[in-house]
Amino acid sequence: MSKHRYAVIMAGGGGTRLWPISRKGSPKQLLPLIGQETLFQSTVARLKNLFSPDQILVVTVAEQAREMMEQSPEIPPENYLIEPAPRGTASVVGLAATVLQKRDPDAAMAILPSDHFIRNVDLFHYLLKAAFDVAENGCLVTLGITPTMPSTAYGYIQQGEPLDGEYKYPVYTVKSFKEKPDEQTAQQLLRMGDHSWNSGMFIWRADAILTEIHRQMPDLGKALTGIGDSWNTQKQNDVLNEKWLDLQNVTVDYGVMEKAGKVAVLPAGGLGWSDVGSWYSLFEVLLPDMNGNIATNTGQHLAHETHNTLVYGGGSERLVVTIGVDDMVIVDTNDVLLVCKADQSQKVKEVVEHLKKHRQENYL
Amino acid sequence: MSKHRYAVIMAGGGGTRLWPISRKGSPKQLLPLIGQETLFQSTVARLKNLFSPDQILVVTVAEQAREMMEQSPEIPPENYLIEPAPRGTASVVGLAATVLQKRDPDAAMAILPSDHFIRNVDLFHYLLKAAFDVAENGCLVTLGITPTMPSTAYGYIQQGEPLDGEYKYPVYTVKSFKEKPDEQTAQQLLRMGDHSWNSGMFIWRADAILTEIHRQMPDLGKALTGIGDSWNTQKQNDVLNEKWLDLQNVTVDYGVMEKAGKVAVLPAGGLGWSDVGSWYSLFEVLLPDMNGNIATNTGQHLAHETHNTLVYGGGSERLVVTIGVDDMVIVDTNDVLLVCKADQSQKVKEVVEHLKKHRQENYL
Repeated sequence: MSKHRYAVIMAGGGGTRLWPISRKGSPKQLLPLIGQETLFQSTVARLKNLFSPDQILVVTVAEQAREMMEQSPEIPPENYLIEPAPRGTASVVGLAATVLQKRDPDAAMAILPSDHFIRNVDLFHYLLKAAFDVAENGCLVTLGITPTMPSTAYGYIQQGEPLDGEYKYPVYTVKSFKEKPDEQTAQQLLRMGDHSWNSGMFIWRADAILTEIHRQMPDLGKALTGIGDSWNTQKQNDVLNEKWLDLQNVTVDYGVMEKAGKVAVLPAGGLGWSDVGSWYSLFEVLLPDMNGNIATNTGQHLAHETHNTLVYGGGSERLVVTIGVDDMVIVDTNDVLLVCKADQSQKVKEVVEHLKKHRQENYL
Repeated sequence: MSKHRYAVIMAGGGGTRLWPISRKGSPKQLLPLIGQETLFQSTVARLKNLFSPDQILVVTVAEQAREMMEQSPEIPPENYLIEPAPRGTASVVGLAATVLQKRDPDAAMAILPSDHFIRNVDLFHYLLKAAFDVAENGCLVTLGITPTMPSTAYGYIQQGEPLDGEYKYPVYTVKSFKEKPDEQTAQQLLRMGDHSWNSGMFIWRADAILTEIHRQMPDLGKALTGIGDSWNTQKQNDVLNEKWLDLQNVTVDYGVMEKAGKVAVLPAGGLGWSDVGSWYSLFEVLLPDMNGNIATNTGQHLAHETHNTLVYGGGSERLVVTIGVDDMVIVDTNDVLLVCKADQSQKVKEVVEHLKKHRQENYL
């Protein structure tokens, strides 16, 4: 791939939706949730055939950077950008674009979350190349995911007309971005057929996104200019820290994309994508047996008249026996046992809130 | 109570229905399943107000006797009768009757399982006294349990006419004993209104049951005569071992009661009785909270949108979180986790069979 193309992995998040496996000190992307590799390692591995290691950047927080450097030592240390504090994806994207543009004025970049799963890596590569082709014409490109169900867990992107020009894959202008819908709305959007899930994967030229930031978020733009001017000088970190803490916490979707000029979407079907955003989502990611059961990371699972049930161990080697159990998620860690109806696994968040409120820090 | 009245606790059984808590080495009666006391200790405690310790006998196997003596040291060691090997309840009853008759030719005895639960102890005492009154007239008396549901887990006793004479409690002749029925039959029996569950609790004079044994099971009768003749001599244990191993394994219900002459039943309602014969039965025994949930012997249980669910810990102090879970039994031991639909908890037996077949001895 062109040497002006870069991948930027966004990896700062915490997240409680896979509690009790993911905890404060061990966020989702750093865990071997699926197979032997961590989600972060898989994300890096997915990019290796397309990018040389020095074309891969990681934006993260200081607490996670060291672990990531150990997990993926091939990425050079100077490619880790450290957020002084969480200030939303608009700031992260702006920082990465600023740093890349200093390195390479023709830089184009793919923004990629560190904690997603993609089964069909070849198709992912193909789509990414197609998206870069579109982005190098100045468009802000989003990778949309063709919905397979009326999910209320994602934002939606409505496509408009096909984009002018010839591309390797169908590309459309974007009519609108939509926040996470309620169930009824989600069903309508699915039926309309012109909506994709917002995957949080974006592809654009560094100068194109910076131009939009300056236009729509002038405070962020000004801060980034200051950070860029001091980059690679002795003052680099002082300026970054100082400017960063004054930034507002805004997502790139809300702060930039919704009102940006030239926005395009590639609606990707068949990617086998999951944001691994709940225990339920593991049913899409891992391959169940003929009864729909999945046992992973665990000792022996004796499934007696059991269907569509996930047993997820976390270090324990216990024998797990299920009898007459349907549609259940069982997460078996050393200090917490979670038994949860599969389609209610998003309520894990409520339990974590409860534990926070009651100051049961040892479980967080 | 009359000094000729004795209690005989039958305590030799193994049983797999409360696996994984009950194991080969730790049968149900020796475990503190309900509260602080073991079922055996509760059984003894229930009898203390009625019988002096030397009027309480225990028939058990050698492997369990030592533990029982530690748990209930008030019962004199000579009141423990050791079965050389399991040979069914007919043999056990015969041995106890033989030994008691040697001690006291006027002995009457209540046969009581060691692993049952009775909530209403006062009523139990009242019924036991009433049953002894009947038994001392020569009847073989069974304590029937008035059914509260069409259970297929128990045998049934059909009552006939009220017994001649005046008693403290309604007593009936027995029309028939019935094996564990199928569901449809169980519903019919419940509707008929004249059937009780066979609780395995019997009250009779020692000479009355021995007469029936000699009549119906002459081989057992002969063996018992030999054992009785050598009892309290140096040959006691040799004769017991020799005779015992030739005995057939027969229940007292099948071998004696079904064709016995003078049989009576006291149908007991409101006793709060349970044979603690499955995890499901604990819902009757332990007191659920307003959502029907029970957490016992465990660490913290966080029940989120959870109903009619039992969490039973076995040494583990883990946090157990349930979300959207209904009608479930969760048994959380150090080496086995069982998650089981409540009304299918009798299938635990099938799992134990599976483990036996696959020689996973460490779980048995």
